[in-house]
Amino acid sequence: MTRRPTDERLDPVPLTDVSIDDGFWNDRLETNREVTLEHQYDRLGERSLENFRRVRDGKTGGFQGMWFEDSDTYKWLEAASYVLATRDDPELRERVEEVIELVGAAQEEDGYLNTYFALEEPENRWTNLNMMHELYCAGHLIEAAVAHHRATGETSLLAVATDLADHIDGVFGTGPDDLDGVPGHEGIELALVKLYRVTDEERYLDLAQYFVDRRGREDTRLGWEAEHPDETGGDVPPDIFLEDGKWDGSYAQAHEPVREQETVDGHAVRAMYLYSGVADLVAETGEDDLYRTLETLWTNMTTKRMYVTGGIGSESAHEGFTVDYDLRNRTAYAETCAAIGSVFWNHRMFQLTGEARFYDVLERALYNGVLAGVSLDGTSFFYENPLESLGHHHRAGWFQCACCPPNVARLFASLGEYVYAQGPDDDVYVTLYVGGEADLSVDGADVTLTQETDYPWGDSTTVGIETETPVETALHLRVPEWCEDVAASVNGERVEADAGDGYVVIERAWTDGDSVTLDFALPVRRLAAHPDVPDDADRVAFQRGPLVYCVEEADLDGVAPSHLRVDPGSTVETREEADLLDGVVTIEGDARAVSTEGWEGALYREYDDLADDESVATLTAIPYYGWDNRGAGRMRVWLPTD
Amino acid sequence: MTRRPTDERLDPVPLTDVSIDDGFWNDRLETNREVTLEHQYDRLGERSLENFRRVRDGKTGGFQGMWFEDSDTYKWLEAASYVLATRDDPELRERVEEVIELVGAAQEEDGYLNTYFALEEPENRWTNLNMMHELYCAGHLIEAAVAHHRATGETSLLAVATDLADHIDGVFGTGPDDLDGVPGHEGIELALVKLYRVTDEERYLDLAQYFVDRRGREDTRLGWEAEHPDETGGDVPPDIFLEDGKWDGSYAQAHEPVREQETVDGHAVRAMYLYSGVADLVAETGEDDLYRTLETLWTNMTTKRMYVTGGIGSESAHEGFTVDYDLRNRTAYAETCAAIGSVFWNHRMFQLTGEARFYDVLERALYNGVLAGVSLDGTSFFYENPLESLGHHHRAGWFQCACCPPNVARLFASLGEYVYAQGPDDDVYVTLYVGGEADLSVDGADVTLTQETDYPWGDSTTVGIETETPVETALHLRVPEWCEDVAASVNGERVEADAGDGYVVIERAWTDGDSVTLDFALPVRRLAAHPDVPDDADRVAFQRGPLVYCVEEADLDGVAPSHLRVDPGSTVETREEADLLDGVVTIEGDARAVSTEGWEGALYREYDDLADDESVATLTAIPYYGWDNRGAGRMRVWLPTD
Repeated sequence: MTRRPTDERLDPVPLTDVSIDDGFWNDRLETNREVTLEHQYDRLGERSLENFRRVRDGKTGGFQGMWFEDSDTYKWLEAASYVLATRDDPELRERVEEVIELVGAAQEEDGYLNTYFALEEPENRWTNLNMMHELYCAGHLIEAAVAHHRATGETSLLAVATDLADHIDGVFGTGPDDLDGVPGHEGIELALVKLYRVTDEERYLDLAQYFVDRRGREDTRLGWEAEHPDETGGDVPPDIFLEDGKWDGSYAQAHEPVREQETVDGHAVRAMYLYSGVADLVAETGEDDLYRTLETLWTNMTTKRMYVTGGIGSESAHEGFTVDYDLRNRTAYAETCAAIGSVFWNHRMFQLTGEARFYDVLERALYNGVLAGVSLDGTSFFYENPLESLGHHHRAGWFQCACCPPNVARLFASLGEYVYAQGPDDDVYVTLYVGGEADLSVDGADVTLTQETDYPWGDSTTVGIETETPVETALHLRVPEWCEDVAASVNGERVEADAGDGYVVIERAWTDGDSVTLDFALPVRRLAAHPDVPDDADRVAFQRGPLVYCVEEADLDGVAPSHLRVDPGSTVETREEADLLDGVVTIEGDARAVSTEGWEGALYREYDDLADDESVATLTAIPYYGWDNRGAGRMRVWLPTD
Repeated sequence: MTRRPTDERLDPVPLTDVSIDDGFWNDRLETNREVTLEHQYDRLGERSLENFRRVRDGKTGGFQGMWFEDSDTYKWLEAASYVLATRDDPELRERVEEVIELVGAAQEEDGYLNTYFALEEPENRWTNLNMMHELYCAGHLIEAAVAHHRATGETSLLAVATDLADHIDGVFGTGPDDLDGVPGHEGIELALVKLYRVTDEERYLDLAQYFVDRRGREDTRLGWEAEHPDETGGDVPPDIFLEDGKWDGSYAQAHEPVREQETVDGHAVRAMYLYSGVADLVAETGEDDLYRTLETLWTNMTTKRMYVTGGIGSESAHEGFTVDYDLRNRTAYAETCAAIGSVFWNHRMFQLTGEARFYDVLERALYNGVLAGVSLDGTSFFYENPLESLGHHHRAGWFQCACCPPNVARLFASLGEYVYAQGPDDDVYVTLYVGGEADLSVDGADVTLTQETDYPWGDSTTVGIETETPVETALHLRVPEWCEDVAASVNGERVEADAGDGYVVIERAWTDGDSVTLDFALPVRRLAAHPDVPDDADRVAFQRGPLVYCVEEADLDGVAPSHLRVDPGSTVETREEADLLDGVVTIEGDARAVSTEGWEGALYREYDDLADDESVATLTAIPYYGWDNRGAGRMRVWLPTD
């Protein structure tokens, strides 16, 4: 399958038309709304909002936090706007309006808006594109503005965003008076396409195209800055990421033109935001070269550089990709934001193609690498998401660099937008199994889709149709890659379900009250990793449905996870544990536990001298997302095999 | 066993009295002398010597290299002095004298000597003890001066060193006009004890004691600097290593008083140099508290934080120790300098106790973690020594931070000092099996010990005695921990050899021409790591004699190391390969190679779907020290078991 023509691309059913009522997600989303957003607003008040106030009040100096602190406010605004898109919350609405007013008041006459430079170095705007993130912050402002406008119809923040985008459009370009440069941290590309879509102003699309086309060209500013650090402004030098003493641009995917890139490289969040923006461009322009680039990069990432949790970016020093098959577990970086970025990118790849494989990767990241990023109570967060711990990795309430918490918040608040999609012929896609309703227009008729599901724990999902007039359409029900056996029935009658292309497709005239029920087989899967992955050689990981499992010290009755040896062929059972971790299904079975006898005072011993008295241990595995909610203990996903 | 009284400590037979003529080491030492030292001198000329010239010539500014670049010159001087201790080399002697003259000419009137501060910030001496390394450089100068004096009897460099030490003694202390602080990078402590030993000036010993006693006290300067970075000089802020935003001192072992420390923490080279200096202090003062601290730290390191290669320091960001059992393989830092530091420390622990266990660790580090640090041709170096590679780790000719190459050079050039030792009653210890001769004084008689050995490849070592008059003494022949079965004979007659305490001890009246032959059994050992080490769970490593082995892609005929599965119980053979890697013994056997069939385009698959057709592969393992001499390929030490 390949990219669809631009006029046949799929569109998500917008957030305003989807309501979620789901056993798995309700608690999460309520916590996100009631606790996480509140918690984050309090943190904003301490640093980020204070910066905006200082600019508004005409003060200088005194900037607090990271130089891209503005983006935290924007991501909170975006998340809050998504909440407002789906529910009436006057208190939150008022708070959002106050923040918007504050942001607007900090905008300068010419449209420029960045509190770091306004307070600290007004003379140094746009002098350090590598690291000072003015364009990155602008992108988040634009995303927040589009979200707010779509949610409320208001233009208060949109006006701020368009003024800033117009200012940027006036500064950047290839003309003789233009600054020819690209952002060191991408994000504005996808934001500009969003802005184009709500304003119909082609210059925003052109500006996004400019930023993509110029990236990795030797005559743009990034490399020049790295060679002239004394002529750049800002707190952070433009050349902090050097390879063999030489800046090569790969940290920011600027080592070669985008169309020539074949491997996912550099800072993983930057990469995901870039590829998302490129996908948006392709959606509008239909450019095949760029699409082929995306396919190549996606294949590289998903077949050589992605954790089984959907996490990406192995290395902490540059928060990014390294080389093929470097999937270190305990020191995995796998930043929460990068997994979120993968959700963004794969969502767009699906929209370009309709292909289910992109949702498989999206779902893997969402239910594992992203979901682990926030505690069950919604107030503490992982920045890194390793697949193994010696008991020293623990979520924190906030970070000096606080990108991840509000990123989780905005993704969760917009979850509804990932559940359904429609093509140009009004055919309908159910892409995630999340209970609730969606209002669609099919063939000019108003249709409500209902979804009841016990996903990801149970095996049954029913999609119902409410319509005043019968409608003829193809209903595409996604069959996740992990499901090898799905049964479908329409109104209780079993129907043929060929899921060859990743969907059960049922095309018929639907009348009010019709329903389709899918029964997914939900076996416990035992996964192996590619033999070229050294860290997972002879290891097994458990997955059930979309959930990857791990063993955590708290469940092992004194045995450390590294003592376990699992026979991949042995029988395991699942158990519903309503009181554990807000309710999970555990995987239980037998394992061996190697003995620590004879090891006193020794770190290395003869294999032959090891004690034979290995004991039988109970293997209890929990969903990976739930670990470290009972204190920081030892944990591992990939278990040694017997 | 415990620490000996200070007047019973063992002394190494000094370098000037030992000559090496050994099948394994001759090439190494010749390469070190003829190639490595020459190569390093050329590098010094480019940066470090130029700094001394600028100071000598009264210039300002223009400092080149790292802020502790001076230490490279000092380490080269030390290494060259060790060479001069054992052979007449007029050309090298002249070069050494020229460099000494240059160093002396750069010393200031008051004894201060540091080219960074002299050229760049003369007003900021001693303001950034955390990171600017003035005391560290001074320590290396003192070590070079002592080495030069011992080798040549001259005092040209010793005079420079004592002037600087006297200056430091005048600056530091707890008096009202003193600066109360300790070095951010240790090393001067052990150097001051060396200086005390050649000068008999007690104030140097007292100054070493001061630096040890004041470390980790809240009222010394390190923590103050971290809280006042604006009041410190130098290129590097004093607070770069923060824990949770707060400087806690552990990076420099300054988080608590030395006597209270129980785990090896922070920067590994710093730690090794500190512990070496502490051991030297204990040797002079006999302080039991400090000795107990060393025992505790040694036990923590060797039972929980040391690679099987003797490498130490798992983490790259702070080049140091992390937590118990964190022995990540592919991303192991295991800096060459840290393994060298472990050799230094263990050498001193042996001198304090006479216990063989310290030489076991020393030997493990020397033959593996250190030896791997330099290429067979002597011109390229590892800084990090991982135990696994995906094919991207390769030695380099030099480093921006060039601490490791001259550190290897000085250790190799002083190897003779590690081979023999004597106690106060003139009893003799043979601690390493390295062919050659040593001139000793036993009971007032001149005795020459000869050693013929095919160590580490073969199983036989003969120690001969040449003496004009019969001498009565105990000859302690170290039995390495890996040796479970040793046979000893005197003049061809088998004798009882109880190696219970790590030595075969033969006490008798020795006459000229007597000899002792030891036959070590040299089986291939299969090692397991402690069950709490997650990275090595269900892995096996091969060791033969002191050499740890690895498999390298070059020997595997298209199979990647991560594809191999080894049965720890299967038979392996050894093979002498005279043409491989300058001559090695390889370990060969059968292994399974898992199939990559069916993995096209997949990164994770069902365990059950894996292809059954695993092939039999030939396992060929080479000594770890020899890897990456045939190009950078995939490598691993710990092999998955069957």
